[in-house]
Amino acid sequence: MIQPPASCPLCTLSSEKVLWSDEQFRVIAVTDPQCPGFVRLISQIHIAEVSDLPASAQTRMFSLLVAIESAMRQMLHPDKINLASLGNQVPHLHWHIIPRWKDDPFFPDSIWSAPKQRSEPVSSAASQAERATRAEAFWKTVPAVCAAVL
Amino acid sequence: MIQPPASCPLCTLSSEKVLWSDEQFRVIAVTDPQCPGFVRLISQIHIAEVSDLPASAQTRMFSLLVAIESAMRQMLHPDKINLASLGNQVPHLHWHIIPRWKDDPFFPDSIWSAPKQRSEPVSSAASQAERATRAEAFWKTVPAVCAAVL
Repeated sequence: MIQPPASCPLCTLSSEKVLWSDEQFRVIAVTDPQCPGFVRLISQIHIAEVSDLPASAQTRMFSLLVAIESAMRQMLHPDKINLASLGNQVPHLHWHIIPRWKDDPFFPDSIWSAPKQRSEPVSSAASQAERATRAEAFWKTVPAVCAAVL
Repeated sequence: MIQPPASCPLCTLSSEKVLWSDEQFRVIAVTDPQCPGFVRLISQIHIAEVSDLPASAQTRMFSLLVAIESAMRQMLHPDKINLASLGNQVPHLHWHIIPRWKDDPFFPDSIWSAPKQRSEPVSSAASQAERATRAEAFWKTVPAVCAAVL
């Protein structure tokens, strides 16, 4: 663990919508209408890379990641799930857990890519309203899902 | 496991530069001069999401991921490492393990973002030639690194 810089936005909770937390990790809801249900899993200590974590915390982090992914699939039924630990802008370990739909503005590229100029809508399995409803329901399950991870 | 489509490019080895493989996973070198040392960890079976894997294979996959990240840090000393399982274009489970430098064309954005228009070079800790040399050395260690993961 390195000394956290005073400027690290993940070392302060400020305006985050925290769904669950303990001493090691927290999960926040990311309010992004293009990706309803988006969450981040964030280390509570200021480290940059997965391999900076002790082995036991790595194992727990990955168990949380899979549990969240499983719940997201079960509750949202997205076309794909994207998992990413980048941290180029904020080098404090955090995972993006992103539900993707074939008609979201970036599919099949990453959500960090340029949005598509779609000539016609891509057929989707769920309306925007239905996705938002599912996302709220998914977020509500996150505390129980994470609490069940040993 | 679902029936792999005949068109899945990760179900055929074709022109991949395989560094290591076993029954469950393989690691390939990604030849990208903008990210020397880039590798992918790929499931040998055609599944889309991490949570499609049996728990024992998930554990092993994450152990491989961390071992590769650790070796990449030790051999390349990049400014950051990016880990991502996206699969929007090829829904066959694979991880991008990407060394990032502050003066690569995309930093601090993702490698899938638009490249930067840099008005002046960002100082870097290693020259392009040095990075390429380190990347080759790193790729050579991958077989031993992966073989050591139980």
